[in-house]
Amino acid sequence: MELQKARGVRDFNPEEKIARNEIVDTIKKRFELSGFSPIETPIIERSDVLSSKFAGGSEILKEMFTFKDQGKRELALRYDLTVPLCRYIGMNPNIKMPFKRYQIERVFRDGPIKLGRYREFWQCDIDTIGCNSMMAETQLIEVADSIFKDLKLDVEIRINNRKLMNGFLRECGVEDYDGAILAIDKLEKLGEKVVKEELKIKNVKNIDKIFKFLNIKTIDSVSLKDEEGKEGINELKELFSNLKELGIKIKFDISLSRGLSYYTGTVFEIFLKDTEIKSAVAGGGRYDNIIGSFVGNRKIPAVGISFGLEVLSDAIGKGDKKTVTKAFVIPINTKKECLKIVKELRENGVNADIDIMDRGISKNLQYVNSFGIPFAIIVGGDELKNKKIKIKNMKSGEEKIVSTNEAVRLLK
Amino acid sequence: MELQKARGVRDFNPEEKIARNEIVDTIKKRFELSGFSPIETPIIERSDVLSSKFAGGSEILKEMFTFKDQGKRELALRYDLTVPLCRYIGMNPNIKMPFKRYQIERVFRDGPIKLGRYREFWQCDIDTIGCNSMMAETQLIEVADSIFKDLKLDVEIRINNRKLMNGFLRECGVEDYDGAILAIDKLEKLGEKVVKEELKIKNVKNIDKIFKFLNIKTIDSVSLKDEEGKEGINELKELFSNLKELGIKIKFDISLSRGLSYYTGTVFEIFLKDTEIKSAVAGGGRYDNIIGSFVGNRKIPAVGISFGLEVLSDAIGKGDKKTVTKAFVIPINTKKECLKIVKELRENGVNADIDIMDRGISKNLQYVNSFGIPFAIIVGGDELKNKKIKIKNMKSGEEKIVSTNEAVRLLK
Repeated sequence: MELQKARGVRDFNPEEKIARNEIVDTIKKRFELSGFSPIETPIIERSDVLSSKFAGGSEILKEMFTFKDQGKRELALRYDLTVPLCRYIGMNPNIKMPFKRYQIERVFRDGPIKLGRYREFWQCDIDTIGCNSMMAETQLIEVADSIFKDLKLDVEIRINNRKLMNGFLRECGVEDYDGAILAIDKLEKLGEKVVKEELKIKNVKNIDKIFKFLNIKTIDSVSLKDEEGKEGINELKELFSNLKELGIKIKFDISLSRGLSYYTGTVFEIFLKDTEIKSAVAGGGRYDNIIGSFVGNRKIPAVGISFGLEVLSDAIGKGDKKTVTKAFVIPINTKKECLKIVKELRENGVNADIDIMDRGISKNLQYVNSFGIPFAIIVGGDELKNKKIKIKNMKSGEEKIVSTNEAVRLLK
Repeated sequence: MELQKARGVRDFNPEEKIARNEIVDTIKKRFELSGFSPIETPIIERSDVLSSKFAGGSEILKEMFTFKDQGKRELALRYDLTVPLCRYIGMNPNIKMPFKRYQIERVFRDGPIKLGRYREFWQCDIDTIGCNSMMAETQLIEVADSIFKDLKLDVEIRINNRKLMNGFLRECGVEDYDGAILAIDKLEKLGEKVVKEELKIKNVKNIDKIFKFLNIKTIDSVSLKDEEGKEGINELKELFSNLKELGIKIKFDISLSRGLSYYTGTVFEIFLKDTEIKSAVAGGGRYDNIIGSFVGNRKIPAVGISFGLEVLSDAIGKGDKKTVTKAFVIPINTKKECLKIVKELRENGVNADIDIMDRGISKNLQYVNSFGIPFAIIVGGDELKNKKIKIKNMKSGEEKIVSTNEAVRLLK
C-alpha cells in the first residue's frame, strides 16, 4: 500500500494549523462583534438539493463529489455554504428576520488541481437574510474592512451592482447578455483589447458605447434612463455614502459582475494589494431570488460575503509558532512533585507541558528549544526543599529561582 | 424537489451551535493547556489507506462512505481521526517525539441510524505519539478529568489494560481469545449470567476461573504468573499511583477491553453518572503497533483519547443563548450617527448589532427580546445633541442616559 493523501487535499502541521487558527479566530471574533451568530449544516447533502437549478451555475455542478449511501440514496459533498444555507432557511420558515448567521467550514470540489486550488478548502461566510436595505451590505463591508485591518493585509474592496450592469447593457442594446457579461468579467484580467475582440466575436453591438460605460470611474458619473439601472445607481450611492460615514475606502468597479451566478444586486470582490496573489480573498453579493425559489416563490432577500481561508493563509504565511505550549517542566528525580506543579500551572491558565520520556536536562532543553517553547522550568530536589523552582527564559537564557505562584505570575 | 437533509445528518441552529461551540472551546482550551498542539488532516482520504488491515476492525469498514473522483481514484470519507493520524505520522518520519497533537473535527459513518447515532459527527481527539511511559496515559486522563470538571459533568473513568487481560485469559487456558473478549466486553451491559451463557456457547473453558478474575475490584488483588500479564499489572499500578498523586478518582475495570480493536495496553472509557445516557462520553487507549505497521515495522508507541461531541452535547443540552449579540442599537432618525456608535462598540470588544430594517422602536424591542439580547441602545436626536445615548437593560427594564464611553464600560 502506498502511504499517500488523496489528490488535491492537504495536511497542516502544528505550525501551519496554529497560524490558520489565528486567522479563523480573528474572523470569528469580527463576525460575532457584528451580530452574526453561528449555525452548522452538514457536509453531506442530498445531491438533488445541491444540484437544484437555482443553486449556482452548471459549472460548479461538474465539480460536485457525488456518491450513494447503503440505502442507494444520491448524496453529495457541499461545494459551498450558500446553497445549504438556502435549504436551511427553506426548512425553517418561521425563522426571525433579519437572520444573520456565520459559518466557518469546509467545502469540496472535484476540480482541476492548480496552484492555490484545492479539492477540500475552508470558507468563512456571513449572510444576512430578509433585509432589502443597503444597511445589510454596509455591515458586510464593514466586517470585511475590520478583518483585513486586524490581519494587517492591505486590500482593495471593489463594488458594483448587477442592476446597474443590466441597465447599461440594455441601454447599449446588448442582446447576448450572458456572453457580454462573461467577456466584461475578464476586463481586469485580460485588458480592454482582448475583451473588445471577444465581444466582437460574440457579435455584441455598440462595443464603443459599452466601453464608454466601462471607463466610468465614479458612481456620480453614471447616468441611465433604464429603471432597473437607476435602482442600481441609487443602491450604490446609498451604500457608498454609508461606507464614507464609516471611513471605509472602496473602489467602484463598473465591470465587476462575479460571473453568471445568482447575484441580483450589489456585488463585491476584495483583492490584496502589492502581492503576487491574484485571486480574490473575499467576494459576495446580493442574491434576492435563490432562497425564494427553494420555498415556493416567496421572495426572501439575502446578501452575503465569503472569505477564502486558503488564500488568506497563503498571504499571511505559516507563522512562527510550532507549539501552543508556553512552559515545559523538566523533573530531576521529582516526577511526582512535577505532576502537581504542571497541574497548578494549567489550572492557572498557563499552557504547560512536562517531560514524559524520562530524559536528562540537556535532551529536554534541546526538545524545548526545537519547538520554540519560551520557558523551561527545572525542578530539582534542592529547589523543592525550599518550595522553589527554577525558571529559564529560553530566549535570553536568564534563570530565576521562584515559587510556583511567582512562576505563574511571570508566565501570564 | 423535496427540501430535505440527507438521512442521519443534522443542522444546528444558533442556540444549538453556540452551546456546541462552548463545549468545543472548553475542550480546546484544556487540550492546549496540556501541551497538545493542533494539526488538520483532510476529510477525504484514499480508501486503501483507510481500509488498511491495521486500521480498526472490519466492522467499521462496512460503514465507510466510498466514492471516486473524476480521475476514477478510489476515495473515502474518514471514519475516525486515528487512522489519518497514523498516515500523517507515517508520511512525516522526521517528526520530533513525543508528538502531542489534538484534532476537533468531523468523521463520517454510513451506519444504521439510531437514537444518538449520526452519519456525520464530531470527535475531539488527543494522542501522544512516541512515548512508552505511563506518563502519557496520566496526561490523557488528567485532561479528561479537567474537561468534565469544567463542563460540570459527573463521570466515572474506567481503566483496564489489554496486557493484563491477555495474561489472565492465557492463565485460564482460553483458546478462542477473540470470542472470549467479545463476550466479556458485554459484562457491564448484559450482566454475568448472559455472558456466562455466551462463553459456554463459544466453548470457552474454565469459565469459573475467568469470573474469579472478572470479580476482582482492585489492581492490588490481581496476581498473575504470565509475563505479559505482569507487565499489564505494573503499568496499571504506575498509572493509578500517578493519578492518585493528582487527586483523580478512577475505577479499575478488569472486564473493559474496547472490543477487538487495535489496543495493545491501557484502555479507558468514561461514562456519565446519574443519567439516561448509556454511551461512553470518551474512550481510548494505547495502540503501540498500528503506526509501525504503516511505516514498515518501525515500532512507534501511541496512546490517545477521543471525546464524543454529540453525546456531550446531548448531556449538556442546548443552552440558553439564542445569539452572541450583547447590545442592539435602535436609531430614531439617527442612522448615520448610529453606524458610528455601533462601530465604536465593536472596536471596544462589545458584540453589537443595529436595526437594518428601518423598524420602529417597539418592533425593534420585540426583536431584541425574542433573541434574548441583554441590552438595547436607543439613539434619538435629543440624546445625541448632548452626545448621550439611552441604554436599556432588557431584563430589569432599567434605562440610563450615558455617553458611548460609559455604555462601553457598562457592557464589558
